[in-house]
Amino acid sequence: MTSTLDAPLISTTPNPARALVCRGCGAEFPLAAQHACYECFGPLEIGYHADLLRAVTREQIAAGPKNIWRYAPLLPAGQDPAARLTLNPGLTPLIRADALAAEVGLHAPLWVKDDSANPTHSFKDRVVSVALTAAKALGFTRFACASTGNLANSVAAHAARAGARSVVFVPADLELGKIVTTAVYGGDLVAIDGSYDDVNRLCGELAETEEFEDTAFVNINVRPYYAEGSKTLGYEVAEQLGWRLPEQVVIPMASGELLTKVDKAFTELVEIGLVEPPANGWRVFGAQSAGCNPIAVALHQGTDVITPVRPTGIAKSLNIGDPAAGLYALEAVRRTGGWMEYVDDDEIRDGIRLLARTTGVFAETAGGVTTAVLRKLVASGRLDPGAETVVFNTGEGLKTLDAVADLVGPTHRVKPSLRAARDAGLLG
Amino acid sequence: MTSTLDAPLISTTPNPARALVCRGCGAEFPLAAQHACYECFGPLEIGYHADLLRAVTREQIAAGPKNIWRYAPLLPAGQDPAARLTLNPGLTPLIRADALAAEVGLHAPLWVKDDSANPTHSFKDRVVSVALTAAKALGFTRFACASTGNLANSVAAHAARAGARSVVFVPADLELGKIVTTAVYGGDLVAIDGSYDDVNRLCGELAETEEFEDTAFVNINVRPYYAEGSKTLGYEVAEQLGWRLPEQVVIPMASGELLTKVDKAFTELVEIGLVEPPANGWRVFGAQSAGCNPIAVALHQGTDVITPVRPTGIAKSLNIGDPAAGLYALEAVRRTGGWMEYVDDDEIRDGIRLLARTTGVFAETAGGVTTAVLRKLVASGRLDPGAETVVFNTGEGLKTLDAVADLVGPTHRVKPSLRAARDAGLLG
Repeated sequence: MTSTLDAPLISTTPNPARALVCRGCGAEFPLAAQHACYECFGPLEIGYHADLLRAVTREQIAAGPKNIWRYAPLLPAGQDPAARLTLNPGLTPLIRADALAAEVGLHAPLWVKDDSANPTHSFKDRVVSVALTAAKALGFTRFACASTGNLANSVAAHAARAGARSVVFVPADLELGKIVTTAVYGGDLVAIDGSYDDVNRLCGELAETEEFEDTAFVNINVRPYYAEGSKTLGYEVAEQLGWRLPEQVVIPMASGELLTKVDKAFTELVEIGLVEPPANGWRVFGAQSAGCNPIAVALHQGTDVITPVRPTGIAKSLNIGDPAAGLYALEAVRRTGGWMEYVDDDEIRDGIRLLARTTGVFAETAGGVTTAVLRKLVASGRLDPGAETVVFNTGEGLKTLDAVADLVGPTHRVKPSLRAARDAGLLG
Repeated sequence: MTSTLDAPLISTTPNPARALVCRGCGAEFPLAAQHACYECFGPLEIGYHADLLRAVTREQIAAGPKNIWRYAPLLPAGQDPAARLTLNPGLTPLIRADALAAEVGLHAPLWVKDDSANPTHSFKDRVVSVALTAAKALGFTRFACASTGNLANSVAAHAARAGARSVVFVPADLELGKIVTTAVYGGDLVAIDGSYDDVNRLCGELAETEEFEDTAFVNINVRPYYAEGSKTLGYEVAEQLGWRLPEQVVIPMASGELLTKVDKAFTELVEIGLVEPPANGWRVFGAQSAGCNPIAVALHQGTDVITPVRPTGIAKSLNIGDPAAGLYALEAVRRTGGWMEYVDDDEIRDGIRLLARTTGVFAETAGGVTTAVLRKLVASGRLDPGAETVVFNTGEGLKTLDAVADLVGPTHRVKPSLRAARDAGLLG
């Protein structure tokens, strides 16, 4: 429950979701807690009633609350404000970044979409709000996830706000910032001795057990609903640009899902007539770290075979070695004429500092990845320096302090006297 | 510069500030970079044109941007959007906290005003945005502060966004989260071997030097403008409650200024006719830590003599041993029939966990202080459990992880197999 200013009533909006549709073979299934196709085992996503989407207007969205739920007419859950299980994330700042553009060599407008401004300081609040609202409607009473950290933070905080039970699963070697920020909410926190991919596999098995029948794993058994939450990032960019699409977007990839959903959001907005596409369309660029780059490597090798890797490196929130949506990310990047790049840990640290120094946004390692990849893409000529570009910062620097803690610190240390300040050079 | 959605044009709004007025003797001075009265050395604050304030309407505010600048007609700077030096803070969530109310024994509505949602995750973004916008208009080109951490974060980030120079001064023993989050923006960061009060004294001396003529110390030479930024917290609470005032507010105290400015905001809103006061008025409650409690002790002793202390304890952001606005905080609390309390470090840690578990808000130590004081005030009967109450969380738990890092952590640690999960009790 939030204040009156945040939550106008839009409970008469119908739910536009129609069915679960297989991304592989196109088979359709009723809207339930199912994530894989019974025909071909392909992943499922939400299909919509086209007429309901086409009926949505800019004015209807503008009259909605100042968070993701303004886009409820385009989402598979949350039309009834009273039935939401949410921290009301979204409508995060879109920041004009002229100084960053100048440093990386862009001369068209550059924007940073800063999702560290969400309630638990990552874009995961968007997907969790949609997933848990759908899960509650489906009858689940306990909420779970496999996570590299940010998702765990978000699920635990959402459950605490709602007074619900949660159990989240993370690799045991996570950053302290992500462990404490999850544990403090008081739910169950299970540290697994293994990689994220190990955690994910175990959660897939647990979700099939009788003991977890009451439990929605946001990124497993209700994944189709969860993934749709990422569309709101694309909708917001379009609305914040005055109902225009940028010509280029640079997006970090873990599972690859976020990239595909921003592309899906842009496609939907064009199809339903809320925006005109740019004259030459939009181009989607993907960012990974050198320690976990299976999707980018497949693109560079011109193959559809994504070879799983054992992730290493500091960009832990992106460390998914066997990316569930990798193929679809490849498809989106190839279709739109974009590209993918990856950067090493030193470049990531430089990226964090570059973004902070030029925009005032302190990003976690994933944001360092995206900023460093932006620079690399301009340098290599893959990104058009004369085309309007949006880079996505998906998380908060305070959660990965160690990445830069050894590189930055006080520039001066002095005793509290004018004389000491003068000796330290502070008075010229 | 922000997106079109965030920043409607309101450049025709006049600046309502009239003069600097001495809080002690009432002497008036022109609007300049002056913070102490030339007659009695009392602190100065902003006086307004009453007719300009009275002309402000709810509709005018509602049509403004979704941040503090919607209240520009009530502030001493920032009427022209193009002249702002700002991260656009404000309009942070007001969260209904029924579970917290139940645990502490309140049966009237309880709300948490969560200012950790600001761009650098503390309420300081409000005061810094107003101070730097005023300072820029006054011709300053470098921006500085004496800080316990959050203020330094905010000044450094604001300067980075604006491409301006900054030099911030902090005690050398600050939390890592606050050092790194300031240093990463690339300005000068001076660590002082001493307490905040030592830092503040040195900055007062530096501000008088020729070498710092170009430098605005936000909380020293432009303090009157800076302090007014805190009024926006009070305005937002009123607007988010549907243009009503709560009957009770619980506010953390460092200098004591925030408490006085929330009270001033409520007073102004009543005077200019934007809200009706509650039938029995509002009551203001102040929260300190046991390690730094000079204002609360003065209240308990029934005196106006605030005896400076050497601060100790984990609530470092509140550790001002010689509080500049302490007298005015005492006045506001006595006038409104409120009270002050203080809590020790264990109570602060419990307060952080209680707030997180019941609301999903992870606060820094200052928020733990306020939550623990809320509980204490209800238990002692000082706070009316049947009166609507707002508690202010002014900062982010990620900045003070150490406070709870030893108390919370994984509830289970297992190998990635169903068998290990069963052995650990996860399957009943």
